[in-house]
Amino acid sequence: MINWRLKFIPLGGVTDVTKNMYVYELYQNDELVDILIVDCGIGFPREKSLGVDLIIPDISYLAEKDKAKEDKISKIRAILFTHGHEDHISGIPYLYDRLKQPDLYGSRLTALFLNKKLEDFGYRKKVNEIRYLTDYQFSNFKVRFINVTHSIPDTTHIFIQTPAGNVYHGADFKFDLTPPYGPPPNFYEITKVGKIGVNLLLSDSLGAEREGLTLSESVVGESFEREMRTTKGKFIMTTFSSNISRIRQCIEVAQKLNRKIAFLGRSMKENTKAAKEIGYLSGLESILIKEEQINRYPPKKICLIVAGSQGQFDSALAKISRGDNPNVKITKGDKIIFSSDPIPGNETEVYDLVEELIKKGAEVIYPSISDQLHASGHGNIDDLKFLIRFINPKYFVPIGGTLRHQRQFQRIVKELGYPENSVFLLEEGDSLWIEKNRLYLGRKIETKTIYVDAYGVGDVGNIVLRDRKNLATEGIVVVILTLDNNFRLLSQPRIVTRGFIYEKNEEELLKQSKKIVAQILKPKKEKAFKLNNIKREIINKLEEFYFRIKGRKPLVIVEIINI
Amino acid sequence: MINWRLKFIPLGGVTDVTKNMYVYELYQNDELVDILIVDCGIGFPREKSLGVDLIIPDISYLAEKDKAKEDKISKIRAILFTHGHEDHISGIPYLYDRLKQPDLYGSRLTALFLNKKLEDFGYRKKVNEIRYLTDYQFSNFKVRFINVTHSIPDTTHIFIQTPAGNVYHGADFKFDLTPPYGPPPNFYEITKVGKIGVNLLLSDSLGAEREGLTLSESVVGESFEREMRTTKGKFIMTTFSSNISRIRQCIEVAQKLNRKIAFLGRSMKENTKAAKEIGYLSGLESILIKEEQINRYPPKKICLIVAGSQGQFDSALAKISRGDNPNVKITKGDKIIFSSDPIPGNETEVYDLVEELIKKGAEVIYPSISDQLHASGHGNIDDLKFLIRFINPKYFVPIGGTLRHQRQFQRIVKELGYPENSVFLLEEGDSLWIEKNRLYLGRKIETKTIYVDAYGVGDVGNIVLRDRKNLATEGIVVVILTLDNNFRLLSQPRIVTRGFIYEKNEEELLKQSKKIVAQILKPKKEKAFKLNNIKREIINKLEEFYFRIKGRKPLVIVEIINI
Repeated sequence: MINWRLKFIPLGGVTDVTKNMYVYELYQNDELVDILIVDCGIGFPREKSLGVDLIIPDISYLAEKDKAKEDKISKIRAILFTHGHEDHISGIPYLYDRLKQPDLYGSRLTALFLNKKLEDFGYRKKVNEIRYLTDYQFSNFKVRFINVTHSIPDTTHIFIQTPAGNVYHGADFKFDLTPPYGPPPNFYEITKVGKIGVNLLLSDSLGAEREGLTLSESVVGESFEREMRTTKGKFIMTTFSSNISRIRQCIEVAQKLNRKIAFLGRSMKENTKAAKEIGYLSGLESILIKEEQINRYPPKKICLIVAGSQGQFDSALAKISRGDNPNVKITKGDKIIFSSDPIPGNETEVYDLVEELIKKGAEVIYPSISDQLHASGHGNIDDLKFLIRFINPKYFVPIGGTLRHQRQFQRIVKELGYPENSVFLLEEGDSLWIEKNRLYLGRKIETKTIYVDAYGVGDVGNIVLRDRKNLATEGIVVVILTLDNNFRLLSQPRIVTRGFIYEKNEEELLKQSKKIVAQILKPKKEKAFKLNNIKREIINKLEEFYFRIKGRKPLVIVEIINI
Repeated sequence: MINWRLKFIPLGGVTDVTKNMYVYELYQNDELVDILIVDCGIGFPREKSLGVDLIIPDISYLAEKDKAKEDKISKIRAILFTHGHEDHISGIPYLYDRLKQPDLYGSRLTALFLNKKLEDFGYRKKVNEIRYLTDYQFSNFKVRFINVTHSIPDTTHIFIQTPAGNVYHGADFKFDLTPPYGPPPNFYEITKVGKIGVNLLLSDSLGAEREGLTLSESVVGESFEREMRTTKGKFIMTTFSSNISRIRQCIEVAQKLNRKIAFLGRSMKENTKAAKEIGYLSGLESILIKEEQINRYPPKKICLIVAGSQGQFDSALAKISRGDNPNVKITKGDKIIFSSDPIPGNETEVYDLVEELIKKGAEVIYPSISDQLHASGHGNIDDLKFLIRFINPKYFVPIGGTLRHQRQFQRIVKELGYPENSVFLLEEGDSLWIEKNRLYLGRKIETKTIYVDAYGVGDVGNIVLRDRKNLATEGIVVVILTLDNNFRLLSQPRIVTRGFIYEKNEEELLKQSKKIVAQILKPKKEKAFKLNNIKREIINKLEEFYFRIKGRKPLVIVEIINI
């Protein structure tokens, strides 16, 4: 009898909202036969202030050889994508070669966004566009995509059937009963999966702290209409540029109220261009105008859809707020709608932008004064309860949330009558074995944080970041000594500082520092000098001195030039 | 006939929630005769990641001489304090000498906290403790303190009468009809002020975005009881350590439910000690124990009140979460209540702490999953409407909020039937003249941001911060050249980097850099070398090189040692 086992390993997306990547390994009598991967996204570093741009999943585990000395990567049968958000798709171009260019599958808009990403990196291979109501066989994996709703069109859940057990991969979703564009979730398909039987339900958990059902996206469209009707000048809307349904709703209202539409910002222009290509903005093309045409129309005939809802410094909206866009000047009568919540950590930037726009004379509507202008894409507690009832699995893994969301998800599951230990709160690299109706934790895999910084992948490591943090809070002092072979100073010690003190005001401090250095270099009888000892002593003495005088600990570096 | 004019200048607290300081100048026939100041607090810098601790008001305007060549500071008759929060009192020790140690006035707890601050800085002068229902005469200013409610006991508003007009200084408040400790606001006194007549109402505006009345502090006490009853292990509560009423409520519940109380964290210990001194924790002393005694009691007999609700790394609660407190270990059954909202910008730290505590096995209750465990100290829209109706002034200045709160306050005023232009949205340094029922803007005063960094006041300026920001995102490269008088290299160029690349992995890059430097130093016929030109050229070439290869712009410094 064949013994089948399925191993599930999240390489991101657990105890972390972003950087989603999930590995499914199928073993036949202890031999790894097939790998299936779901999603491969980027993460957003906390070290924003340290100049790191993004994080990608650490796939070094997949580069390991298995028992038969075979490469795991060659067993990857496909990578499936649940939807087109950055934290689910944008890791792939960085990892495509290392993963040996596997076959990629995604729904219509997802495939389109992925293809653009791959093209940007010079790849020509096309993503396979999936069909619904269709079983895909990837070796021993049988897979079916199910359409659900989220804040981007064409979002899917994935039902994965294996000889070892079945998994419902319930990535980011909400149950929107009145989606403004596209069909509602296919509840029949979802409940049918429940009928077939599911060992493990993975479920979005980001909304697990919020009561009730999530607001329908349609409500936002109604708010747009109400707000646009009372706007005397330009109507300006900002949101995430991947939220095609919301953008479409804004355009529909503009059409109804006789305003022309212009898109501003690179991501907004690119995404709406892509959406247009596949007909997602059909019937609305006639009112679209170019940025340069804005001033041909009176303000009350204009609606702008602008990137930069998170207050990013370089975004189109921030440029407008600074008066840097020659085509768009903010004046009294203009109304600006922030149709998005600030992502935690971005509050300062967002509200700075709001206030800059208020200062320019616009009326600004933002989430803390109006709750109908943005709808979350993630299911609240009641959405999650519906999914659990539909699927009725044996075991649960909350994904797409941090530990506190996972814990709240566990409470919900318990409330519905399941035992608490049917919920596994996984961390990145944890592994879970599924075997004959059993589920148990396996060995934990080590993962590292892989930073992408400007052009470099992984070349900014923890040491560099630790230095940057220190430089950022305390500054740096470089001491340069030119010594002859007897360790006598050939010229005055040179001391250069940055980010520590304003040197022009601190001549005395620098003089004192030089004295301390000279003192250490005074010839001593007892002991011969050693370069490293000198360095150490200078660093210690100066650190002590600066901390005593200034209460700060700059990074002190000593460079000795021997001549 | 004497012509009186009153000039009002906010040196902080407008378009900024913190660093409150307000100057009132009284002029008699164009001659400045008296100055009164209300509050002198600190601000909290956005540049947290750049190692700046706090900001204090810029009082250089007061150091100006007036027309008669007299020092303004000598005309300061008193500084009055509205309540004991850091952003209203903690600037004074830094400025006390420069202000020539003026007389200070505040309510009971305010005076106590202020005295501690002054003692910490070595001052012996005592703050005058005010009485209510009493007129104070400071030269031509007649002043009356009125008790209101806020998130710290003994909070006051101040009614200022002058020959030029009357001002109601309505700093931070809410109208709590059921304060758990101390009297409710003195509505009779407030409405009497309205009857006397007010030219200008200054009003807290921080809550101007929120509907309804602010929750009473008493509701929080009820939640404490509900939560404590269902806690099997230790009950741990964290909040702002100045919130004596909330701390008292927690102790009262602990007394009722037979738990001992210990305070953890420096600020929590100090503030509760002070509150005890003046009897604000009377009747509760018997259940207080020391930190070292915690383990003599079973967990279910323990309630800890702990500093660190904002997730500060060095706080008592963060130490507990890391297992660094030998007296307090978190175990299953413990419950931790965050009785405070994260201050915008602190979300990441707060939620990291929440999750660390969940990981340790505790149940953690925090604002986003429970709305009855914290009550704001600031009045919502309806509180503000009541104040406006009570006072019924001619003009308004919203304070204690940023521009968007000021703007919302203006909407509220308009809703109540006042003209929009009766509200002045002031920025720091704006001046407002009050004269015979007229109000008009005066000349704007220049103010600077004065940073306090470790021991130093004002010695970290914008240049240092700009360098730190650059160092933080890009790192630094120091190039050291030892040259003879003919600009020939006496030894290989030395290149040191920090926060840019990990040098061990980048030998090639460093070799290339040295080549570039050597190339520049090659003898040229046409032109004599100039030190500054060499430096400039090396910096330009290297910056260009690094940006091309790495996409980054580190700070490049060239130091030339001539021998």
